[in-house]
Amino acid sequence: MNHLLTMNELSITEINEILEDAEKFKNGKKWGVEQQTFIANLFFEPSTRTKFSFEVAERKMGFEVLNFEAATSSVQKGESLYDTVRTLEAIGAKAVVVRHPQDEYFRELNGKVNIPIINAGDGCGHHPTQSLLDLLTIKQQFGRFSGLRIAIIGDIRHSRVARSNAEVLNRLGAEVVFSAPNQWQDSTNPYGRYVHIDEAIETSDVVMLLRIQHERHDEAMGLTKEEYHSLFGLTVEREKRMKLGSIIMHPAPFNRDVEIASVLVECDRSRIFKQMENGVFVRMAVLKRALRVAKEGVVVC
Amino acid sequence: MNHLLTMNELSITEINEILEDAEKFKNGKKWGVEQQTFIANLFFEPSTRTKFSFEVAERKMGFEVLNFEAATSSVQKGESLYDTVRTLEAIGAKAVVVRHPQDEYFRELNGKVNIPIINAGDGCGHHPTQSLLDLLTIKQQFGRFSGLRIAIIGDIRHSRVARSNAEVLNRLGAEVVFSAPNQWQDSTNPYGRYVHIDEAIETSDVVMLLRIQHERHDEAMGLTKEEYHSLFGLTVEREKRMKLGSIIMHPAPFNRDVEIASVLVECDRSRIFKQMENGVFVRMAVLKRALRVAKEGVVVC
Amino acid sequence: MNHLLTMNELSITEINEILEDAEKFKNGKKWGVEQQTFIANLFFEPSTRTKFSFEVAERKMGFEVLNFEAATSSVQKGESLYDTVRTLEAIGAKAVVVRHPQDEYFRELNGKVNIPIINAGDGCGHHPTQSLLDLLTIKQQFGRFSGLRIAIIGDIRHSRVARSNAEVLNRLGAEVVFSAPNQWQDSTNPYGRYVHIDEAIETSDVVMLLRIQHERHDEAMGLTKEEYHSLFGLTVEREKRMKLGSIIMHPAPFNRDVEIASVLVECDRSRIFKQMENGVFVRMAVLKRALRVAKEGVVVC
Repeated sequence: MNHLLTMNELSITEINEILEDAEKFKNGKKWGVEQQTFIANLFFEPSTRTKFSFEVAERKMGFEVLNFEAATSSVQKGESLYDTVRTLEAIGAKAVVVRHPQDEYFRELNGKVNIPIINAGDGCGHHPTQSLLDLLTIKQQFGRFSGLRIAIIGDIRHSRVARSNAEVLNRLGAEVVFSAPNQWQDSTNPYGRYVHIDEAIETSDVVMLLRIQHERHDEAMGLTKEEYHSLFGLTVEREKRMKLGSIIMHPAPFNRDVEIASVLVECDRSRIFKQMENGVFVRMAVLKRALRVAKEGVVVC
Repeated sequence: MNHLLTMNELSITEINEILEDAEKFKNGKKWGVEQQTFIANLFFEPSTRTKFSFEVAERKMGFEVLNFEAATSSVQKGESLYDTVRTLEAIGAKAVVVRHPQDEYFRELNGKVNIPIINAGDGCGHHPTQSLLDLLTIKQQFGRFSGLRIAIIGDIRHSRVARSNAEVLNRLGAEVVFSAPNQWQDSTNPYGRYVHIDEAIETSDVVMLLRIQHERHDEAMGLTKEEYHSLFGLTVEREKRMKLGSIIMHPAPFNRDVEIASVLVECDRSRIFKQMENGVFVRMAVLKRALRVAKEGVVVC
Repeated sequence: MNHLLTMNELSITEINEILEDAEKFKNGKKWGVEQQTFIANLFFEPSTRTKFSFEVAERKMGFEVLNFEAATSSVQKGESLYDTVRTLEAIGAKAVVVRHPQDEYFRELNGKVNIPIINAGDGCGHHPTQSLLDLLTIKQQFGRFSGLRIAIIGDIRHSRVARSNAEVLNRLGAEVVFSAPNQWQDSTNPYGRYVHIDEAIETSDVVMLLRIQHERHDEAMGLTKEEYHSLFGLTVEREKRMKLGSIIMHPAPFNRDVEIASVLVECDRSRIFKQMENGVFVRMAVLKRALRVAKEGVVVC
């Protein structure tokens, strides 16, 4: 079963295969299904980018999309995630894409459902397709990972992206540095060392900002937005000290003038909207991988 | 106008036709529309199975689906069901599928709209496509209805399924027995006699469990879940005393370890997920019936 | 960029072109896209007619529809309209249809996004496709605008329709009269004079009623529904005094027995459901205009 649950289950070979497929999709390669094939997207949390990116990817490949919304479903009557997925499988879904607020929600599904599960984000845990689109964006820019320094800056502790990305970037030969206020540092994440924000920004090839996830934690930072921006954000002034050829990334949604100065969102160095474009192609590659070996009429290329 | 509102409006001949068509769809028969044809699904209550089952059925037949959600519609501005359906008709829908919390909501529509209405559940009243998929599941198992004993167990009073199923099963020659706590017995339902749960389970060919509909009534049973399960549920111990060749059914969503022991949901006797699969085929047959005589380009087989 | 934001940006020539295209679509003209093209519908307010009318128009033309719902999107995390639209553009949308409660929300988008914006209603401001479908309905009836008297009756002050329609009807050579309770008169709208409701109804070719928008203002009129109906509504008695050949229009949703007697909604003079039908064709014409000059594979006729 070709689930995609976490980045660390993917080998370097598999990652490169996905990135190469994504690049082919970006360049117009067609891949479709021979017969009508339904995929269900289950989003238990608000999402714009991930949700529509998957939907566009699916429809570009000719899949039929079932948009499951927890709010109008039998989840309201207490139905579990497992029973919901089994139901959609019985009704005809050949794969499910799931975003869920519970960390590692997929542990209760794995081995018990007969269709691929694609993790579109679990709690504060993993978000593999976000990591893959980040990798694609870096590879497009630099053609390689080894020897690059990547700074991941912001709310490391509550970020799905920080964990997945740091681990895989290490495996791919890049160096990761973190920068975060003390209370958002994550001592369980061994894939980078903490440096001062100025050092992070001035010495890195990629400045990857994280979103302050107001909705996930209620720790008051005790800082105003202006104070946070000035202490830990990518200010206009700091951007000027970035390395020649370095780029800015952010998984979005971004808080303008908090983690990043509003005018920098679409500046020359920014790859933020490029990341979103790449999200579609990476998800096409992931869907191809998930359904390649499925029995029911789905064909490769 | 080929509405489908209640089971008792369907003759035995019509029921058999629907079941035969459903079996053909299950075996891969194609039936499609010659030109683009829109169907609107109006769900005024949460639903997973029924909603997606209709959507998959419609899209398998090539219909274009309009997913109407009460929460984001002009129903929020006080628009009535009649005005909503007439609006969707004016915009181009050639049929409407409706689930609504009000008993017999369709009385205010019947004779006044020009497109078929397919009832996907009304209040505590009717749910004809659920009955039809139950019948298909029984017929697949036993090849007949006459001579079978069907036990319907649980919240008879608040169940759409109990009423529709009991009536039609009687007409088809089966014997129905009910088993329920006193306060959930329904003296207005003449299609079965009440027996003790142990007798119901030990003597029936089909044990059809109903869901405790916590969201529809606030009568406290005065029982814990464990007590309810032990007194009125299908326990692991009771399942062992079921007849040879008998099956378990449940319209779902089920409350695990309340009306049915969790381990029995996917046991050999269980046809619960088979019922969901059959739901798609039955709904395809119902759509074929509803739109067969429509004028606008919809063709048979 | 062929946005459609307000009626007053459209010349008489452009309006006539749209109405002629709409009439052709009504008569079965086909127009489609050569390659898969996504359009995103962003509705930040409840809607039945406008939302589904756009969706049906889009799908009749072969577009792929992305249904964006604010409630399940990153708008919940504070993402702005601009960032949302740019995101959908990055993901692949080739046009956006937007309804938003803020007056002239499009000012923050115009000139900054690279895809056409079609305004599906902004606050109390504009609703150009509603105006266009009203014009089509009048033109179908009378074949002309000049020399017609159009009465617009009701909540003029809070109506998007009153402002757009009055301006354009004047430009097209019609005379507009308003009738409204004092507190709902709008001294900033110079395109008609106020007359007594009886004069308005007895002397006009078109009686255009507006909806009392309970959800937009909390001024208590100090009137019961019956009193309002009797003083400012189209009663059964007033309809009898309408001019020979005159028609009734209402943008809907209507409040039965408030602004219009319930029995008149579908009477011979009423074009209310005809307006809804025309809405689909007008929106097809607007989409054709918006995407005609787009680069990416969209072709005319």
